[in-house]
Amino acid sequence: MKNISPEELNKTPMKHSFGARAVASLLPVFVVGTYDHKGKPDAMVAAWGGICSSDPPSIAISIRPSRYTYRNLMEKMVFTISIPSVKYLAEADFFGITSGQDTDKFAVTGLTPLRAEYIDAPSVAEFPVVLECRVSKHIKVGSHTQFIGEILEVKIDESMLGADGKPDLARLQLIGFDAFRSEYFTTSPVVGQAFSSGRKYLPG
Amino acid sequence: MKNISPEELNKTPMKHSFGARAVASLLPVFVVGTYDHKGKPDAMVAAWGGICSSDPPSIAISIRPSRYTYRNLMEKMVFTISIPSVKYLAEADFFGITSGQDTDKFAVTGLTPLRAEYIDAPSVAEFPVVLECRVSKHIKVGSHTQFIGEILEVKIDESMLGADGKPDLARLQLIGFDAFRSEYFTTSPVVGQAFSSGRKYLPG
Repeated sequence: MKNISPEELNKTPMKHSFGARAVASLLPVFVVGTYDHKGKPDAMVAAWGGICSSDPPSIAISIRPSRYTYRNLMEKMVFTISIPSVKYLAEADFFGITSGQDTDKFAVTGLTPLRAEYIDAPSVAEFPVVLECRVSKHIKVGSHTQFIGEILEVKIDESMLGADGKPDLARLQLIGFDAFRSEYFTTSPVVGQAFSSGRKYLPG
Repeated sequence: MKNISPEELNKTPMKHSFGARAVASLLPVFVVGTYDHKGKPDAMVAAWGGICSSDPPSIAISIRPSRYTYRNLMEKMVFTISIPSVKYLAEADFFGITSGQDTDKFAVTGLTPLRAEYIDAPSVAEFPVVLECRVSKHIKVGSHTQFIGEILEVKIDESMLGADGKPDLARLQLIGFDAFRSEYFTTSPVVGQAFSSGRKYLPG
């Protein structure tokens, strides 16, 4: 273990304590799509989530048991994740401030619920990125239940692909969530290459 | 369930299939800090992770069993997450392309392993955001094991706070990861207010 001298410590920035908080930077804006028992499509926003396995590719989303989506998930065990661009920021935000219990969120916003190809769940057709997922596990974690979904399919708008056929973040303009300020941001231009920028530290 | 006419479908964008892939946009760059059994500090990059509960505040990170960090986690059951800014992009990338098995990543990069306040794990002193976490559960999910950590403390560089005392993303310049292109980005200026932008769809 490296010893830290007082001089070294003085070089490191002073930090402010925010205590025990559910925050991290660059949180996602995942719009979770499900059908209810009558087949009504619903969509809610989940910022609590992320990829959790490479093989099989899987993604975790955390939902409170009080949510309409929770009931739909427990019943159907499938969901989509549609990821909004800046263009649909207001619609995505609306999906997060109302409940499917008493609102048809698609009808109100005029967005199109499109049934997924492989599962019985609706995606938001206008959003540029869609994942189709089947629940493989669900785990109670404190206030939320974490649904782990195997990703069966990823679809991205053709107009959002670069010349190399890969999705282009500069075109996608996807939104992220800052939990500290309850604000949305999008991505900057590329600032570096992964698995490459750090090579300068490898032994010559 | 809303019926979709062919006309409506024609209005929605054509999507390209990428099959079953572990991708989502705006992935985080979490640098996971642990001590090994000899007290040597290690740091690895995890882009597979996210918040998973509000109360107690908890965060999930997924780690392959082959990783040095996995062994440390199983032994110590505590970890930090340090979040790098653009300034430390190369160092963070290096943390992801080498193993603590044969490298003292802190010594090589010259970064400072600072023991956390509440747990026996090292943070990266120079990175602007640090979370201190105690493992409450670990769950095997395919190729990875998901470690769920209760967030005991969040610390942020004082110089990164706005006039209102809240962290300011424009100063923080935190990096995110695009799994499609293996590229890093940072955040754009604010594009909207959460729990507010969608109010225009609420019944008048």
